Amino acid sequence: MFPPDFYAVVLAGGRGTRFWPLSRRTVPKQCLSLDGGPTLLQRTVARTGLPPERILVVTGPDMVEPVRAQIPGIEVLVEPSARNTAPAIAWATWEVARRGGAGCVVLPSDHVILDEPAFRASIAQAAEVARGGALVTLGVRPTRPETGYGWIEPDDGPDGVATESQSLDRPVRRFVEKPPLETAERLLAGGRHLWNAGMFVWTTGALLDAVHAHLPGTAAMLDRLGEGAAIADVWGLSDATSIDYGVMERAAHLRVVPVDFGWSDVGSWPALLEVLPHGEGGVSVADAIVARRADGNIVHAAGKLVALLGVDDLIVVDTPDALLVARRSDAQEVRLLLEEVERRGLGRYA
Amino acid sequence: MFPPDFYAVVLAGGRGTRFWPLSRRTVPKQCLSLDGGPTLLQRTVARTGLPPERILVVTGPDMVEPVRAQIPGIEVLVEPSARNTAPAIAWATWEVARRGGAGCVVLPSDHVILDEPAFRASIAQAAEVARGGALVTLGVRPTRPETGYGWIEPDDGPDGVATESQSLDRPVRRFVEKPPLETAERLLAGGRHLWNAGMFVWTTGALLDAVHAHLPGTAAMLDRLGEGAAIADVWGLSDATSIDYGVMERAAHLRVVPVDFGWSDVGSWPALLEVLPHGEGGVSVADAIVARRADGNIVHAAGKLVALLGVDDLIVVDTPDALLVARRSDAQEVRLLLEEVERRGLGRYA
Repeated sequence: MFPPDFYAVVLAGGRGTRFWPLSRRTVPKQCLSLDGGPTLLQRTVARTGLPPERILVVTGPDMVEPVRAQIPGIEVLVEPSARNTAPAIAWATWEVARRGGAGCVVLPSDHVILDEPAFRASIAQAAEVARGGALVTLGVRPTRPETGYGWIEPDDGPDGVATESQSLDRPVRRFVEKPPLETAERLLAGGRHLWNAGMFVWTTGALLDAVHAHLPGTAAMLDRLGEGAAIADVWGLSDATSIDYGVMERAAHLRVVPVDFGWSDVGSWPALLEVLPHGEGGVSVADAIVARRADGNIVHAAGKLVALLGVDDLIVVDTPDALLVARRSDAQEVRLLLEEVERRGLGRYA
Repeated sequence: MFPPDFYAVVLAGGRGTRFWPLSRRTVPKQCLSLDGGPTLLQRTVARTGLPPERILVVTGPDMVEPVRAQIPGIEVLVEPSARNTAPAIAWATWEVARRGGAGCVVLPSDHVILDEPAFRASIAQAAEVARGGALVTLGVRPTRPETGYGWIEPDDGPDGVATESQSLDRPVRRFVEKPPLETAERLLAGGRHLWNAGMFVWTTGALLDAVHAHLPGTAAMLDRLGEGAAIADVWGLSDATSIDYGVMERAAHLRVVPVDFGWSDVGSWPALLEVLPHGEGGVSVADAIVARRADGNIVHAAGKLVALLGVDDLIVVDTPDALLVARRSDAQEVRLLLEEVERRGLGRYA
C-alpha cells in the first residue's frame, strides 16, 4: 500500500501520435482505453488505491478537458505551457509539500501494469527507502534489448553482481540513455541493468533540495510561488528539461528498487501483444472476432464484429471516421502516416 | 438504343454471400453500391435508357422491399418462391407479351458494364437478330480461363474460325458449362469461344414457343395465367430449372452476338480490381486513402479515411457493425467465414 503520508503525482501531459487513429489531437494516449475498459489514466489513478484528495494530476493546457472529464473529483494542475517533465514534477512536489505531504510517488499515466498488488508492494518498499533521503527510481527488469528506453546501472559494490539481493534496493551508479542495439544487448545479457520506467518516489524535502542544487531557474520559480505568485507568471523561470537529465543524472543520493509487476509503456500498437490476452487471430478489442488462418494480429475495433481471413501480423484499428490497416513490423511509421494525413489537408482526421 | 417495341426484364432475385459484410441477408448484392455511387440494380435499370413503363424487375419474396425501395416507379414482379431462372423469365416474357411488347432484353441486375454506349449498341444488334426468330445470347469475349462460367461455342461454319466476322452474330453450336481449368485454358487459347453472361434477347413469340416445346409445366403455368389465375396459385406448376438448362441448351434456333463492353459479373471482392479505377494503395471506395508502401488492396469503407501501411493484396471492408480484413487470394472463403459467423450465434451480423 501507499504510505499514508505520501501523495501520488500523475503525469498526464503526453501527446502520443503512435496510437493514431485511436489517439487524436484532442484525445491523447492516456485518455484511451486500449483494452476496452477504463482508460490508461483512469487505471493509473485507480491503481494507487488512494483517496482523490491525495492525488495530483499534471497536464498541459491542450488536454485539460479530456483529462478532467475522465477523473472527476481529482485536482488537476495545468502547466501554462510544455516545458518538459522537470518543471511539472518540481511544481507538483512543491504542491504536495504545501499540503503537508511527506513525499510523492510520481507516475506516468500512459503505462500498463498487469500485477497491481506487486505494484503497490513495490511502492511501499520504495517509500521506505525514500524516507532515508534518497531519490528513488523504480527499475523494471528488462526483457529485451530495448533501445528506446533509459537503462539504470545499479551499484552492486566491489563484488559485482549480488544475485542474492536482486530484489533489494541499491544505489544507482549511472544512467545509460537510449543505448545502441549492441550496448542494449550487452546490458540485457549482463543481467544487472534495469529499465528506467519514469516512476519515482521521494520525500518532498529530498526532491526540493535537489531542485535547488541543480535547477536554479526552477528553484526560483518555486520560491516565487511560495511568495504567492501565480504559476502563469513564474512558469517561464523554470528550466525546461527532463527530470532525468535535470535532476536524476546529477543528484548524489539515488537508489533504485528493482520491480517486476508486468509493466509496459505500450509505446505503440504492437505492445498490445504484451498486455492483452491472446485470442482468436491475435489480440483484440472488438465485439467479436471470427478468424480463419489468422494469427499475430492486433485488432482494435470496439463494438464491431471483425472477421480475419488469411492475414497475419497486421494492425487493424477502426474508429468512427478512420481505419488503419498496417503491417505490424511497420508500426513505427504510423507517425509518418499521420504527418502525411496532415500534409494532405486531412487534419480533421489527425 | 433499345428497339422501341422491346422491354427490359431485369432479374433481381440473386442473394450473393460473397460480398459479406457489405451484403447481408436483407441487402443482396444487386442492392449494393460497390463503387460508392448508385447500386448495381439502379445502374442496370438506368443503363437501359428505357422509360420506367418498359422495364419489369423480377425478384424473390425476401427481397421485395430493398428492391422496390431502390427503383420507385418501376414494376416489380414477385416470384412466390425461388424456382431458378426459367419460371421467372418465362413469366416476365409472358407479361411483356400481354403488354403488347414485341420482345425482351433479359438482364442480370448484379453485373457491371463499363462501356454503356457499346452495351446499347450490342442490344440493338441483338434485337435485330432476334426479330429473325432466334433466341439470342450475348457472348462476352473471354479474358481468362474462367471455370465458374458457362462458355458458348459459336458455329463458324465449315471454314472454322471466321476472323473477319468476329463481331457478327453466329449460330450457337453448343454450351460448355463450367469447364475444368485445362478445358477453359484451351477454349481461351482457341479464340472462338465466348462467355455466357446471362443476357438474352428474344421476341416474346420465340421464347414462349420454346417454353411450350421444352418446359411443359411452365407452359401450363402460362396457360393458366392466360385464363386469369393468380401467379401464387399456378407458380408450383412451373419447371424449377435454369433458363440455360431448360431452354437455351435445348432450343433449335440459337444465335450469339459477340460483345465487348467492359462486362464483369463482380463475383467476389477481387473483381473490384477490374471495375474500379486504380488509385493509392489499390482500388477503393472511401472518403480518403493515405498509403505508404501499399498496393493491390481492395478497400470498401464508405465515408472513412483509410490508412494503409506496408500491406499488399488485402481486402478491407468496413460497415457500421462489421469489418472484414482478408487476403485477396482467400476471397472465395468469405462464404465459409460467413457460415462460421452464423454457427457462432452471431447471425445479427450475417
